[in-house]
Amino acid sequence: MRIIRSIRGLQTWRRKHENQKIGFVPTMGALHEGHLSLIRQARKQCRIVVVSIFVNPLQFSPTEDLSRYPRPVKSDQQLCREAGVDLIFWPSSEEFYPKDFQTSVTVSQLSQRWEGEARPTHFEGVTTVVAKLLCLIRPAQSYFGQKDYQQLLVIKHMVQDLNVDTKIVRCPTIRESDGLALSSRNRYLSESQRRSSTVLSAALKQGVKSIKHYVIDVRKIKNNMQEVLRKTSGISVEYLAVCDAKTLDPLKSVRGEVVLLGAIQIGSIRLIDNMLVKLPSMN
Amino acid sequence: MRIIRSIRGLQTWRRKHENQKIGFVPTMGALHEGHLSLIRQARKQCRIVVVSIFVNPLQFSPTEDLSRYPRPVKSDQQLCREAGVDLIFWPSSEEFYPKDFQTSVTVSQLSQRWEGEARPTHFEGVTTVVAKLLCLIRPAQSYFGQKDYQQLLVIKHMVQDLNVDTKIVRCPTIRESDGLALSSRNRYLSESQRRSSTVLSAALKQGVKSIKHYVIDVRKIKNNMQEVLRKTSGISVEYLAVCDAKTLDPLKSVRGEVVLLGAIQIGSIRLIDNMLVKLPSMN
Repeated sequence: MRIIRSIRGLQTWRRKHENQKIGFVPTMGALHEGHLSLIRQARKQCRIVVVSIFVNPLQFSPTEDLSRYPRPVKSDQQLCREAGVDLIFWPSSEEFYPKDFQTSVTVSQLSQRWEGEARPTHFEGVTTVVAKLLCLIRPAQSYFGQKDYQQLLVIKHMVQDLNVDTKIVRCPTIRESDGLALSSRNRYLSESQRRSSTVLSAALKQGVKSIKHYVIDVRKIKNNMQEVLRKTSGISVEYLAVCDAKTLDPLKSVRGEVVLLGAIQIGSIRLIDNMLVKLPSMN
Repeated sequence: MRIIRSIRGLQTWRRKHENQKIGFVPTMGALHEGHLSLIRQARKQCRIVVVSIFVNPLQFSPTEDLSRYPRPVKSDQQLCREAGVDLIFWPSSEEFYPKDFQTSVTVSQLSQRWEGEARPTHFEGVTTVVAKLLCLIRPAQSYFGQKDYQQLLVIKHMVQDLNVDTKIVRCPTIRESDGLALSSRNRYLSESQRRSSTVLSAALKQGVKSIKHYVIDVRKIKNNMQEVLRKTSGISVEYLAVCDAKTLDPLKSVRGEVVLLGAIQIGSIRLIDNMLVKLPSMN
């Protein structure tokens, strides 16, 4: 496994690997089973697997946890090696965003709602860093987790709009046995917060269950989900929504494929999760 | 010479030409000697020459001349054929910007001044269309005229910031024998406007001459240029500036390489021009 830190080095490496199917997994490090599932998927489908590790300052707001974001360098490296990664691209912030850096890539509508309301500059940071990484690595396939569903849609839209020649592969959310979706931020949860945290996936699951039982009125579905959340103290709900799975428009009644989106706050920690569901056919 | 109109068609074509050095000349059609000089330069330096013809609606404001922008389809095609172009990419607006298109690429500082003040959404339109075209065509080298100097810098910066793997080649401005820089918009000039139009290049030339005579005080240089402009009636000066050739910061005194930028209005027609100059060494 190679590790390349400089952009120049990466470009040189890339030119030596034309005509080879590259699978790309962009990460901010602090790798967990979620990331590893993306890497394994890439490993199965591509000749070369590239992982980027870069805690992207652009996608953090000044009030967020950029400096305390976990950076377990050695274990990340070890996990990549074990998962059969060919190359880690591990740039420095200083080289990646030089002083006169002034370009941004924005996906307007999709970036504005849900996570975009809570974190107004977040998605612009994400699309800008991903655009750069895709230009550098030029992968045939790029792997993203369903866990960050809105991010996945925003990136898909950017790739489609700019005609970037890569296929975005969506990989399923990996969960703890009690339902909590894996996230690098879970490590911040205290023991009691960790116990409360399962309520988010439980609520979404309740929503899925309602839809599978042919409840199509979104008010009723949301009531059912809120019922679950009400049982747990110490959490505050930021949003809970039943949306069109493609546009993220909130729906009044279920049709086609929908996504249930949720964000809660436990202490100072924000957790998000989502589940996709289709109304089962009646016959 | 091939003509491809669909994005899908272009992508298929592109995949069949990996490992071949592609030179790319993006245009809005209405080709003149300026464009042809870019094409000839590309022809000399690259194995395959691609020209795009696309009147990009994003870079026109609602008050500008999108609908009456010239579209001499047959002669453009003929000129490309004669100049040895291998492929014209000639997409439709409808396919290039589908209804749900919502991505933009922005270069902030460089886009805001000079042309950006007169045309606030212009450069975002330019960088977005060029980013798309570069993703589609993936040329080794891309050719831009010095005539649109700020545009050239904005695009260079975007390519550098996003790590797009293409080399931006700057080609000299082509002029009529009386100094007027070629532009597709020159055809709108009446006979008398055409006579007045030479005053812009004359003024810039006067600025270059001043600097070559070691005038370094920008106020004096601008006075000398304005002197020339004052002699012609029926024109209004939008800006006239002596700037750092890299950052476009306006200077108080000449140092390093500078660019003289000018924009004038003749009737309803805006003309821009520029000249690069270095203070000659004193020994």
